[in-house]
Amino acid sequence: MYGEIIAVGEEVLAGDVINSNAATISRMLSEIGVSCRFHSVVGDSIEDITNQLKSAVKRSKVVVLCGGLGPTKDDLTKDAVAKFLNKELVEDSKLIEEINKWYNHRGLTPTPNNYRQGMMIEGGISLVNDNGTAPGVYIVAEGCHLFLLPGPPNELNPMMVDSVIPIIKPLVSSIIRSKTYKLVNIGESSAVTVLDDIMEACEDFIVAPYAKLREVHIKVTAIGEDANFLSQRIAKVDSIIYERLGEYVYSDNGDELIDVIISKLAADKMTVCTAESCTGGLIASSFVEKSGASSVYNEGFITYSNESKVRNLHVDKDLLDNYGAVSAEVAKAMAKGALELTGVDYSISVTGIAGPTGGSDEKPVGLVYIGIGTPSNMYVYEHRFLGNRDKVRDQAAKHALIHLWDLL
Amino acid sequence: MYGEIIAVGEEVLAGDVINSNAATISRMLSEIGVSCRFHSVVGDSIEDITNQLKSAVKRSKVVVLCGGLGPTKDDLTKDAVAKFLNKELVEDSKLIEEINKWYNHRGLTPTPNNYRQGMMIEGGISLVNDNGTAPGVYIVAEGCHLFLLPGPPNELNPMMVDSVIPIIKPLVSSIIRSKTYKLVNIGESSAVTVLDDIMEACEDFIVAPYAKLREVHIKVTAIGEDANFLSQRIAKVDSIIYERLGEYVYSDNGDELIDVIISKLAADKMTVCTAESCTGGLIASSFVEKSGASSVYNEGFITYSNESKVRNLHVDKDLLDNYGAVSAEVAKAMAKGALELTGVDYSISVTGIAGPTGGSDEKPVGLVYIGIGTPSNMYVYEHRFLGNRDKVRDQAAKHALIHLWDLL
Repeated sequence: MYGEIIAVGEEVLAGDVINSNAATISRMLSEIGVSCRFHSVVGDSIEDITNQLKSAVKRSKVVVLCGGLGPTKDDLTKDAVAKFLNKELVEDSKLIEEINKWYNHRGLTPTPNNYRQGMMIEGGISLVNDNGTAPGVYIVAEGCHLFLLPGPPNELNPMMVDSVIPIIKPLVSSIIRSKTYKLVNIGESSAVTVLDDIMEACEDFIVAPYAKLREVHIKVTAIGEDANFLSQRIAKVDSIIYERLGEYVYSDNGDELIDVIISKLAADKMTVCTAESCTGGLIASSFVEKSGASSVYNEGFITYSNESKVRNLHVDKDLLDNYGAVSAEVAKAMAKGALELTGVDYSISVTGIAGPTGGSDEKPVGLVYIGIGTPSNMYVYEHRFLGNRDKVRDQAAKHALIHLWDLL
Repeated sequence: MYGEIIAVGEEVLAGDVINSNAATISRMLSEIGVSCRFHSVVGDSIEDITNQLKSAVKRSKVVVLCGGLGPTKDDLTKDAVAKFLNKELVEDSKLIEEINKWYNHRGLTPTPNNYRQGMMIEGGISLVNDNGTAPGVYIVAEGCHLFLLPGPPNELNPMMVDSVIPIIKPLVSSIIRSKTYKLVNIGESSAVTVLDDIMEACEDFIVAPYAKLREVHIKVTAIGEDANFLSQRIAKVDSIIYERLGEYVYSDNGDELIDVIISKLAADKMTVCTAESCTGGLIASSFVEKSGASSVYNEGFITYSNESKVRNLHVDKDLLDNYGAVSAEVAKAMAKGALELTGVDYSISVTGIAGPTGGSDEKPVGLVYIGIGTPSNMYVYEHRFLGNRDKVRDQAAKHALIHLWDLL
């Protein structure tokens, strides 16, 4: 079964917004066996939307339109779909009531514009949006399942999960099983070389590598109609991957590196803290982002200036004077200070030159020292990362987690 | 002049890779007056690529295809374009030489596959790729300028700057001038209501609102052939927007809120520090992300546990016992502690319940207190944010910056 995505919005066409919705929708549809063959983006124009719909409903069984359901006059997706289907837009009293409720609840008065969101395409079913004022629409036309969803990802994503997938899933006969292995400490070409034979002989499964920031993901996909058979195929590839690359695999169930680290620390009843200079809260945030992180992560320090390294982490001022803030000695002292001051089991410290300024011949932009304090020892790692400020910081934060994972 | 982008690649269709190239290309083209009306993504299939090309060359003067120029058998963009144009792929001796040089330089031997990248479409001009092995292609057909670029952004971006833009720029007669106003403390529909008249009467300019996280952006675009006239149009809209909405505008030159805050603090020779609980480093990171932040931001604390609030920020234990960690009193004490301990001029504190667990009837998920310490006073703000953990944290971090901006 083929799917297709039409994003509507001048801001996407102008390049002001990256069309991440298409990736989200494709991934969710592919998990239930619907492959997308086309994505497109069109402007807020009835003509462009209807033209795109003409091709879409011919070649695809599921068409998801996203964006253009807002309250303003340039939000035209509903108008365009109604026109394409030769249907009217009619006032939906239940939706109008919802709008009144939403605004009353917030002590606000709806503007006439807001009531545009209470109009429904004749014969359409409205889809609940718990995170915004634009309801979605589901309508079947010429055997094609059309979905209209709002553009903001925090509204669209739950509506995909709660409405689109439950409606489409029962209609799909072929099944897709996939598993993604996430690896660190190995490059894409090395991983690919080792798996060359199974990547070639891919009659009933696909093995595809993707290079990510300091990681390689290997996605194995099997497509067919017999769930048991598919599971067997995956299991076979699974044993090959673990046999050849097992030492690099940190997860095969969707977990990110930070999830694996939190689980491992929690299982061992261990805690960790952070002391960050150039990463400035990136590592802390990757912990706190996870609900339940508080069992392993309770505090951290951002010590960007020398003064704060001395005051908050008790780094010896002589070390800063003799070796400079970006040095193995200071990284170690930061990790040690954090460990001792907080009483945790593990500490992570980062000090480096993220650029674009601040580099020298001896200490170039990209030079980063990562310290890891453990119950038994202090470790320091030197890195020379390439790329701009963001890239250096992201790589430093990721590598700090990789070092911690290696030691756990 | 209209442009169009066709991305080629199964990994994009499957949702494993987000199509950020389309945004990059659109933005660069729009800066020189080429508006994109369509983006599409198709798979590695000659039929799908040629079908898309058929519509594209009819409606667009510039078509950029990206992806599918790699060395493997499923890289088919060049083959598809050749077929579409009824041309042959011919060996290009200069490209073959480059390939040999590239591999020899690295002590490697090219595989037969690698030589696929030495094939050129008859009549095409090869475009230099300094960051990879796939050269680009430029070819004019039926009055349409076709560009084939490799998919990896670090290869594509410089080729847009060095090849595509210099070729297209001289052909463009119309000019686009645009300006984006960034507003806080006002919702999209209220802003739109105030600007209704100029959004209607848009013969020679377009006023388009975009809702962002706790912000509204209003983009004004004027298109024409006379630069002076366009500047006048923009200036006229500019005065209207400032007259009606000026108090909400924090930037009109592309700066983000954090940039404006850093500039303002730097101009006043003031410094700021952060004390974060549920945002856990998000605010710190938004400062440190900016090169040159060190003149205003030097340190921060992540105090997720009560214990660390007491130890690192000297929050009175009685306050925690009497009011709970998520309370106006504790937010104030955190801001005060941070201010006094570090000696900065401003401090930001956040304590809240990001969820999904930890909420109660009295203190639901989404309840967040933000404290701002200033040279003369302590301020506390209570918020009840909606959404999941990420959304609550993002809104809290953004609102903390908004409060600081309000006070500066």
